[in-house]
Amino acid sequence: MPRDPFDWITGAAAARERAGLVRRLRPRPADDTRLDLASNDYLGLSRHPEVIEGAVTAARRWGAGATGSRLVTGTTGLHAELEAELAAFCGFEAALVFSSGYAANIAAVTALTGHDTLVVSDAGNHASLIDGCRLSRAQTAVTPHADPEAVDKALDAHGGRALVVTDAVFSVDGDAAPLAALAGVAAGHGAALLVDDAHGLGVLGPGGSGTPAAQGVAGGRGVVATVTLSKSLGSQGGAVLGPAAVIEHLVNTARTFIFDTGLAPAAAGAALAALRLLRREPQRAARVREVARTLHEGLTASGLRAIRPDAAVISVPAPLPEQALSWAADCRSAGVSVGCFRPPSVPDGISRVRLTARADLERQDIDFALRTLAATAPRA
Amino acid sequence: MPRDPFDWITGAAAARERAGLVRRLRPRPADDTRLDLASNDYLGLSRHPEVIEGAVTAARRWGAGATGSRLVTGTTGLHAELEAELAAFCGFEAALVFSSGYAANIAAVTALTGHDTLVVSDAGNHASLIDGCRLSRAQTAVTPHADPEAVDKALDAHGGRALVVTDAVFSVDGDAAPLAALAGVAAGHGAALLVDDAHGLGVLGPGGSGTPAAQGVAGGRGVVATVTLSKSLGSQGGAVLGPAAVIEHLVNTARTFIFDTGLAPAAAGAALAALRLLRREPQRAARVREVARTLHEGLTASGLRAIRPDAAVISVPAPLPEQALSWAADCRSAGVSVGCFRPPSVPDGISRVRLTARADLERQDIDFALRTLAATAPRA
Repeated sequence: MPRDPFDWITGAAAARERAGLVRRLRPRPADDTRLDLASNDYLGLSRHPEVIEGAVTAARRWGAGATGSRLVTGTTGLHAELEAELAAFCGFEAALVFSSGYAANIAAVTALTGHDTLVVSDAGNHASLIDGCRLSRAQTAVTPHADPEAVDKALDAHGGRALVVTDAVFSVDGDAAPLAALAGVAAGHGAALLVDDAHGLGVLGPGGSGTPAAQGVAGGRGVVATVTLSKSLGSQGGAVLGPAAVIEHLVNTARTFIFDTGLAPAAAGAALAALRLLRREPQRAARVREVARTLHEGLTASGLRAIRPDAAVISVPAPLPEQALSWAADCRSAGVSVGCFRPPSVPDGISRVRLTARADLERQDIDFALRTLAATAPRA
Repeated sequence: MPRDPFDWITGAAAARERAGLVRRLRPRPADDTRLDLASNDYLGLSRHPEVIEGAVTAARRWGAGATGSRLVTGTTGLHAELEAELAAFCGFEAALVFSSGYAANIAAVTALTGHDTLVVSDAGNHASLIDGCRLSRAQTAVTPHADPEAVDKALDAHGGRALVVTDAVFSVDGDAAPLAALAGVAAGHGAALLVDDAHGLGVLGPGGSGTPAAQGVAGGRGVVATVTLSKSLGSQGGAVLGPAAVIEHLVNTARTFIFDTGLAPAAAGAALAALRLLRREPQRAARVREVARTLHEGLTASGLRAIRPDAAVISVPAPLPEQALSWAADCRSAGVSVGCFRPPSVPDGISRVRLTARADLERQDIDFALRTLAATAPRA
C-alpha cells in the first residue's frame, strides 16, 4: 500500500511538541473581558461606533464583497475615495488598496524590481517583505539591522538599479528605522526606498500620518511606502503609497493586485471612517505614544528590562522560550492579554513578551497591566 | 544629479501603451445599472440581504477588524464557527480561513512542500499557485494542461515526496480539471493533491459543495483543497480544507497565515451567512450551471465560438487582443459588463471575452446579454 502523503507532517508535529513550540488557535469570545495589550488596534478604533458604522454603511451600499478583481468589477467608488484620502493623509501622490498588507508588500517588492535590480533588505524585515524578495527575480543583499552605512556599501558594490527595503517600525522590538538616513543613502545612489509603515501609521508623524512623514521622507522622489488598514485603522487590508506613475505600474504588473479579489466594501468603509476620525482627532496618535512611554517607564521601574519604544510596541525579552510562553500565559490567566514571540517568528532567536499600547487605555488599565507583568515575571 | 529611481517605469508605461495593453481602474458606482456578466458573484449573494446582514451583525458584535494575527488576537469564535461549517459543507475534516484565496494558496503550497519535494503544477494554474511554487523550496515540474498521464510520468521520474497542484475549475476557459484521475495518479505514488476550488465552490458538486465533492475526492487521504469566500459566497477571504493534521501544520508553519491579520469579522460573518443560505437553498448551484449552459448554447446558436462551460465561466476567444478589448468595451457601452482577458493574464496568449453566469439572472437578462454579444462581436 502506498505511503500516506502526509506521514511527514506527523513527524514535524512531534518535533514541535518536543521543542515546546506548538502554536494553537485560541478563539476569543465577543465579550472578552481581558485587558488587551496584544492586538495591533493601536488607536482602539476597531470597536469605535463610527468605524463600525463605516463598515455597516459600506456593506449595505456596496454589498458584502467586491465581487471580482480590482481590474474587472472589484473597484468601487469607495475604493477610489479611500485611496485618494489615504494618499493625501500620508503625504504621497497616489495610493492603491490591497486585501492585506502582506499582499501590498509582495506587490511593491516584486513590481519595483527586475532581474537586474539589487534589493537591499534590513535583517529585521517583516515576513511579507522577505517573501516579496523571494518572489522577485532580483538579487537580495540582507544588511544588518538599521544600518545605513551597510546599505551604502551594498549599493556601492552593485552600482545599478536598486531598491532599499525596510520596516518603518519593527514589529518585534518596536524600534523605528533611520528613514531619513536611508532615504539619503538611496537617493545618493539613484536607488528607490520602500518603507513598510504597518506599525507607524496612526502612531508616528503629525496627527499619526506615519513614519515617512515623521522623518520628512513622505512623498519624496523614489520613496514608496506600504501601510495596513488593519492596525491603527481598525479594519482590514493594506495599501501602497507613492508617485502616481508607480501606482499605475502596480495596477498593470503586480500579481497580488491583478489576481486577487478587491478588498470588501465593509473593510474599505471602516478604514475610511477611521481615517476621517483620526484627521478630526489627531491627538489620538500623541496619546498612544504617551501610553507606550508610560508602560515602558513602569516596566523599567519594576526592574524589568524593556526596550524603549519608538512607537506603540514594547518588547520585553525573556531568557528562554518556555519562560516567555509561561509569562504570557500567566498574564492571560490574570486578565491581561500580551503577545508572545518565539522562534521561528523572531529574527534573532530571542523570545519576548510583547505589549502594544492603545490610545484608549486609561491610567487604571496601565497600572493593572504593570502590576500583572511584574507579578508574573520569570525569576532571573 | 543622480537619476530618478523610477525612470525605468516611464519606459515600461510607454511600451504598454504602444502594445495596447494598458490597464486602467474604472471605479463602478453603487447604483451600476449594467448587467453584470464579469464578476465572480456566481450565486448573486454579495447583494443578498441575509449575507449583508451577516456582515453587519458581525461588525457590530466583533468589531470592524480582527485586530491582530490569527495566533495572537485575530481568531474570534466567529472564525472558528466558519471554519467548522465550511469544512463540513465541503466534505473535509478541518478548515483554516485566510484573508484571501491568494494567501491560502501560497500557504498551502509552501507549507506542504520542502526542498526535497517535487511540485507537479498544471500549466494553466492560477497566479497564486504559481507564486506558491516560486516561494516553496521545492522543485516544480509544469505539466501540460489537464493531463493526468503527464503527471504520472513526472511523479515516476521523481520517486520521492511530491505534491500535485491544480485549479479545479480554470478561471480563463472555465473547464474542470480531471480531479478523480489526478487523485488516483497521486495516490498511486504516495503524493498529495492540492486543488484550488475557487470557481467550483457554490457551483459544482451536491448543493454547490465543490469540485472535489463532485468528483468524489473530497476528504480523501492526501487531498487538500483551497476555496475563496469572495466568489460564490459573495464576501472576501479564502480557506484551506484538509485533514486536521494538515490544518494544524499550516497554523504552525504557513507564513501567510502567521504573519497576516485575521480576516475581518464582517467578511467572516457574510461568508457564514452565505454558506448557511446555500445549505438551505441548494438549488442555487444547479441554477448557475443552467444559466451557464443557456449562455453557451445561445452564443453557439449566434455563430460565436464559445468554450463549453464545466462550471459558471464561459470563455469566448477573440482573434486579437484589440478585438477582445473593443468587444468588451462595446458590450459595456451597450449595458453589459463582461470580462476581457489579454496577455499577460492568459497562460496561452489567446485573448478572450469572458462571461460569468449568475444564479439570479432571469431569462430576459440572458437574452439581452446574448443579443448584445452577437451585435458587438468582431467581424471575422
